[in-house]
Amino acid sequence: MASGRFPVTIIYEVTPRRKATSPCPVARTLDIVGDRWTILILRDLFTHESRRFQELETSLRGISPNTLSLRLKNLEEHHIVTRRMYEEHPPRAEYLLTPKGRELGPALRALQLWGQKHTT
Amino acid sequence: MASGRFPVTIIYEVTPRRKATSPCPVARTLDIVGDRWTILILRDLFTHESRRFQELETSLRGISPNTLSLRLKNLEEHHIVTRRMYEEHPPRAEYLLTPKGRELGPALRALQLWGQKHTT
Repeated sequence: MASGRFPVTIIYEVTPRRKATSPCPVARTLDIVGDRWTILILRDLFTHESRRFQELETSLRGISPNTLSLRLKNLEEHHIVTRRMYEEHPPRAEYLLTPKGRELGPALRALQLWGQKHTT
Repeated sequence: MASGRFPVTIIYEVTPRRKATSPCPVARTLDIVGDRWTILILRDLFTHESRRFQELETSLRGISPNTLSLRLKNLEEHHIVTRRMYEEHPPRAEYLLTPKGRELGPALRALQLWGQKHTT
């Protein structure tokens, strides 16, 4: 075997997301959680300790299961939401905020206050 | 002419926007300013006292003039942004926040802080 005789250079091709490259922290936040459904998922997870997929689907009237699944996956990938199994057979998960996710509380709260004051 | 003899009932068909009907103030806020471009326009108007169309277009790289125009019109309709003429011939306008718009400051600031801490 050639092992040890030919140095192998592994090139990891890391394609930076367009998302992570903005110099503006507001834009970078929006690239992660700026989607309307995403913010409504977060709202539900702020008002309940945890939510099951079905509960989120019912609450977010009009969201397709596929869209909800993608949004949750994105939030998991960014460590904003975590998944916890509440049943093994069949496997069933519920979603809850991580500490990083909970730090979006002030933003959600500000949107809520503005809406309470300026929209009816 | 029949004027005066036949009472005419004018029915104003007011189609309520889906937007204004959510019981959730977070959702209602997002229905007005939840669009990514809209929040970036607001960001620019928070960091500059006023901005011209061209300046916004340059700052928001990738936005089409038509989209920018629609977003500004929506913000004007909701009295979040106002237009001020800085030249009469030819007419040229610049945009600035209203007091109602300035009250979105805490939300913008919260998104900024989260982005500064959690995104790079």
